[in-house]
Amino acid sequence: MISFEDAFQHVLLHPLHLGDEQVDLLRAPGRILAENITADRDFPPFDRSTKDGIAIRFSAIDKGIDRFKIEGTLSAGMAQQRLISESNCFEIMTGAVLPEGADTIIMYEDTDIENGWATLTKTPDQGQNIHAQGSDETAGAVLLRRGLKINAAAIGVLASVGKTEVVVKKLPSICVISTGNELVEVSETPLPHQIRKSNILSLTAALQRLNIVPARLHLTDDRKIIEMELREAFEQHDVLLLSGGVSKGKFDFIPDVLADLGVEKIFHRVAQRPGKPFWFGVLDSNGVSQKQGLRKRETEIKDGSGQSGTKTSGKTANMQAEKKDIKERGTRPERKTTVFSFPGNPVSTFANYHVYFLPWLSLSLGLESEKLEVIMEKPVRPHPRLTLFLQVETQWREGRIRAKPIQGNGSGDLVSLAKADGFIRVPPGETELPPESSFWFVPCT
Amino acid sequence: MISFEDAFQHVLLHPLHLGDEQVDLLRAPGRILAENITADRDFPPFDRSTKDGIAIRFSAIDKGIDRFKIEGTLSAGMAQQRLISESNCFEIMTGAVLPEGADTIIMYEDTDIENGWATLTKTPDQGQNIHAQGSDETAGAVLLRRGLKINAAAIGVLASVGKTEVVVKKLPSICVISTGNELVEVSETPLPHQIRKSNILSLTAALQRLNIVPARLHLTDDRKIIEMELREAFEQHDVLLLSGGVSKGKFDFIPDVLADLGVEKIFHRVAQRPGKPFWFGVLDSNGVSQKQGLRKRETEIKDGSGQSGTKTSGKTANMQAEKKDIKERGTRPERKTTVFSFPGNPVSTFANYHVYFLPWLSLSLGLESEKLEVIMEKPVRPHPRLTLFLQVETQWREGRIRAKPIQGNGSGDLVSLAKADGFIRVPPGETELPPESSFWFVPCT
Repeated sequence: MISFEDAFQHVLLHPLHLGDEQVDLLRAPGRILAENITADRDFPPFDRSTKDGIAIRFSAIDKGIDRFKIEGTLSAGMAQQRLISESNCFEIMTGAVLPEGADTIIMYEDTDIENGWATLTKTPDQGQNIHAQGSDETAGAVLLRRGLKINAAAIGVLASVGKTEVVVKKLPSICVISTGNELVEVSETPLPHQIRKSNILSLTAALQRLNIVPARLHLTDDRKIIEMELREAFEQHDVLLLSGGVSKGKFDFIPDVLADLGVEKIFHRVAQRPGKPFWFGVLDSNGVSQKQGLRKRETEIKDGSGQSGTKTSGKTANMQAEKKDIKERGTRPERKTTVFSFPGNPVSTFANYHVYFLPWLSLSLGLESEKLEVIMEKPVRPHPRLTLFLQVETQWREGRIRAKPIQGNGSGDLVSLAKADGFIRVPPGETELPPESSFWFVPCT
Repeated sequence: MISFEDAFQHVLLHPLHLGDEQVDLLRAPGRILAENITADRDFPPFDRSTKDGIAIRFSAIDKGIDRFKIEGTLSAGMAQQRLISESNCFEIMTGAVLPEGADTIIMYEDTDIENGWATLTKTPDQGQNIHAQGSDETAGAVLLRRGLKINAAAIGVLASVGKTEVVVKKLPSICVISTGNELVEVSETPLPHQIRKSNILSLTAALQRLNIVPARLHLTDDRKIIEMELREAFEQHDVLLLSGGVSKGKFDFIPDVLADLGVEKIFHRVAQRPGKPFWFGVLDSNGVSQKQGLRKRETEIKDGSGQSGTKTSGKTANMQAEKKDIKERGTRPERKTTVFSFPGNPVSTFANYHVYFLPWLSLSLGLESEKLEVIMEKPVRPHPRLTLFLQVETQWREGRIRAKPIQGNGSGDLVSLAKADGFIRVPPGETELPPESSFWFVPCT
């Protein structure tokens, strides 16, 4: 059993790098930008009127002119016109192009307009009410940087430079997997000793918030079936999120099967509550899928290419397999599968997903995880040896985030979880932490 | 021109009540629950083992028995068994049903198991390691209340009681509408005097976060076309979000057309920056659509049913029209359309959407809007007459949300907006507000 800190560090030492993909503009919100976005032209692209009024040449003011003949009306969307004389003006609308030969805009409120003539009622400043070409951004400037999480405003920027498609960080393909003979479908009426699946539905809902639609799989407590199904899941997914089957029970086959499939166990069991039996591992199939790997190994055995003397050709074969694979499945620079095998209790699964998986995903996508903290109003009693994750409700008041615990019935209590805004982390310790202490906060999805 | 406070109150005096609808469980995250969810059985539904170990009858301990013959092994998903004698035990796995006649579970760590016999190495407490039937919730208890925003944990609760479909508050059907001849599609290359649409893409992205996929419409600056297109939009949508065309320009037809279509103007122009020309109104077509309304009015004129003596029959006709309408379009208890007509500058549209539309939507869905506050690190200078909405970046540190302003180029600057975490509201005033003042905060989508 390792400490929470060690477990957390281990998880963060194994990010996946999944490469990039191109998505439609309106599929991009919430995704991570994987290209720099530059201005295709100046912003604004022309000297733009910011008021409804008239456009004049300021030199006229110097010469004492305060009454102008109206040449015409310019609205947004009209090509640039030319002011033919400084004794003339154009009426001009917000968003319209400043006419050539004009340099100042006077809003209607400061003019009297009658019979095709505009008279100023207030002396303007030269250049006023013009949003100058390139004053926001000049052509070629970087508007949005690689690594940005795309928000609604960024969608506007992308639209304005004509990005109908955007290169974003690829999200992992994920399979959420339930285990246990006691589980039946949500649509079924369970027998007295059965319960409906709920964890993988919670996980699916949580992943959907991240724009990930996971595959779902259920494993009965049969070692052969588990092995067969997991082998296939490893071929198809970058991440497996399992729920249940990692305790010390006689039918908790998951750790053994994962070992048999060649998954490297990074750790099993963490000094934490909830979620002590959490198992974490990585299958590194090094550019070849399971089946390809097996076939390749067979070939190596037959023709002896597994010997050290043929290393180069082995590498070439690998690269070819990888190329074929990339062609078939899109860019997938790594053929690693990361396994988060959570204990089956709802609160354990849910807490571990938020505590470990989300920061791991952020790191894999190149995002920095923010360390959030909340202030607990009441004293908190730590556990002498375990790191605790306590469900809390939060309140944002006067610029402070304050939290109070939710009374739950332990790791099986799903209902209390629906009321929680997140978990606080309470490091192990002997002495009670006084009111107003601040704690690391993990918000719930 | 009215104050921000008045404008805000006016908007909140006009919520829409859209009724409920049934959605699939995995479409429910983020939606507002419109039914109480009760436990269909006890939670847990049986006395459930919380450990892997053995199940005994405690009376044996009182009689000095510490060695038990193993009758068999119970795993999760097996029907309840019966312990035939207090000198026997069952091996039992986490999640399994406590056998009849047993009342205490001892984990493997506190036993020695050999040749079909289990010997205790530690004296147990009666009833330990059992998650008692109904101890979380009893059958019939309300687990989730109407009005809850459905999170991932709530999805787990819904799954556990077999809700494959959930009744949620209906979301409004929304049309986002751009105006202006200068706008071209994102996919087009604009001429020098044109720009690409961006506001309605931003709004669409923002609405998608709320599970609303809006219709999109573009209006050129032609009064007849605007009237025709808006008339149709009113028939099809609960909310119109317009961007542009509400200033004092000669081609800003929107307010006039809305008046012609019978939309009640609640206000136009607010003492705020950005977004001064914001226009807000409501079309109350009282259970009949535009066209039906027109036809009905014609009928009333012909047969005189518009007179006071025939009020009842008029009401009945209305109800029939409404019934037909509900049948055709699903439950729509109200036939009101709410119009948010935002100024066309990106920052204005975006700020007004967050400041007015989102609280209005929350209220319409029966949610309480939280009033969030942040602390500004530096002094803030108010405007003597206008309420300001300043773009800020926030930092969550030691339980405090602190903010600093983002330098933008005014209401046309979309790029600075992509960096903002939200807006602070700065009420009008003459004196600078000192550092560490707290402000109402409107987070960006």
